[in-house]
Amino acid sequence: MAHVPASERRPQLVRAAIDLMTREGVGAGSTRAIAAELGVAQATVHYTFGTKKDLYRAVVEELTAQVVCQVAAAAPDHGPFAEQVRTLGYALWQALTSAPDRFALCQELTSLSLRDPELREIMRELQYDLERTATGMITSLAEQHGVELAMPAEQVAPLFLAGIDGLMTRYLVLRQDGQDPGEETLPLLDALVNGVMSVCLGV
Amino acid sequence: MAHVPASERRPQLVRAAIDLMTREGVGAGSTRAIAAELGVAQATVHYTFGTKKDLYRAVVEELTAQVVCQVAAAAPDHGPFAEQVRTLGYALWQALTSAPDRFALCQELTSLSLRDPELREIMRELQYDLERTATGMITSLAEQHGVELAMPAEQVAPLFLAGIDGLMTRYLVLRQDGQDPGEETLPLLDALVNGVMSVCLGV
Repeated sequence: MAHVPASERRPQLVRAAIDLMTREGVGAGSTRAIAAELGVAQATVHYTFGTKKDLYRAVVEELTAQVVCQVAAAAPDHGPFAEQVRTLGYALWQALTSAPDRFALCQELTSLSLRDPELREIMRELQYDLERTATGMITSLAEQHGVELAMPAEQVAPLFLAGIDGLMTRYLVLRQDGQDPGEETLPLLDALVNGVMSVCLGV
Repeated sequence: MAHVPASERRPQLVRAAIDLMTREGVGAGSTRAIAAELGVAQATVHYTFGTKKDLYRAVVEELTAQVVCQVAAAAPDHGPFAEQVRTLGYALWQALTSAPDRFALCQELTSLSLRDPELREIMRELQYDLERTATGMITSLAEQHGVELAMPAEQVAPLFLAGIDGLMTRYLVLRQDGQDPGEETLPLLDALVNGVMSVCLGV
């Protein structure tokens, strides 16, 4: 087999791990199975990821980066403050519901992390990372519009993310074959954005 | 062993299953292990719960009933509308954080349900049950106070529950040995109540 440099092999393996675990569950993500998914030797997985923790971290970071990237790409560069925040919220929802099984994988990793201190450390760092990113977006929008926030962006961000997280979990639980609870959820997403906005602006 | 009627045996077994699964994870809740937890024959578990699904349903119903019971007991019988809703919200948060490992068990069951249609049906019914209960509480409070809701109680309830669910998940992920993220979360809970209230009242 031709030599593939680690800089290319690593993202290939992360994608293979995500595909496999999305399809069959986190428990199915053994190094042997991930190697088979990509058609490489098991030693390659061990060589690329020293420990299972490194692999999990890479998986979680990649899943998050995809969502953040989609949201950032949707960020509008003009319009009123409330409208721009709403657009970001809908972009996040769109990114999550367009790949619900990936969110389900994150859910599964979160659930596992509650019994696994190493994995919990990863999920905790991810949580803080996401909150920092969202805080940055809100702060920057408020500054651009000269809006004085009634509640610090550092609190608005986790509140908003928690709301989205709760709505996504509900979406996944209510999802049935042939039925998409997305339409029923849109008024709730709307209300979440309105509620967060009124807390933001202190109205 | 003295004969214990099914009406007594059943709640004993449900409690044993909850204790065991809270301590060791859903996966540890085999009929053999549950029987051992209570010190009865494995056949007793099979006799009481025809299928694993029946057992899961009983576990989920008992976990929910405990929380609903605590919230209902805390419901104040006077005071302004906003104050009473706030009290209910705090009672729910208090019920969940006073037994975080039980909420973690619910999280684990939700996560498992995403790959198990039978378990998902149970979790879906639970979700609708909880939403009906919360809708009833909000509707009845609004009627008592002659408050006209700007958003149907049927939508306020799932939004509020989703927010609480997201905040609890965050709480569990951020929880570390010796550190309780509860205090840091209180302003977020406050903001959630305020946000939901402003959506409720259309301000």
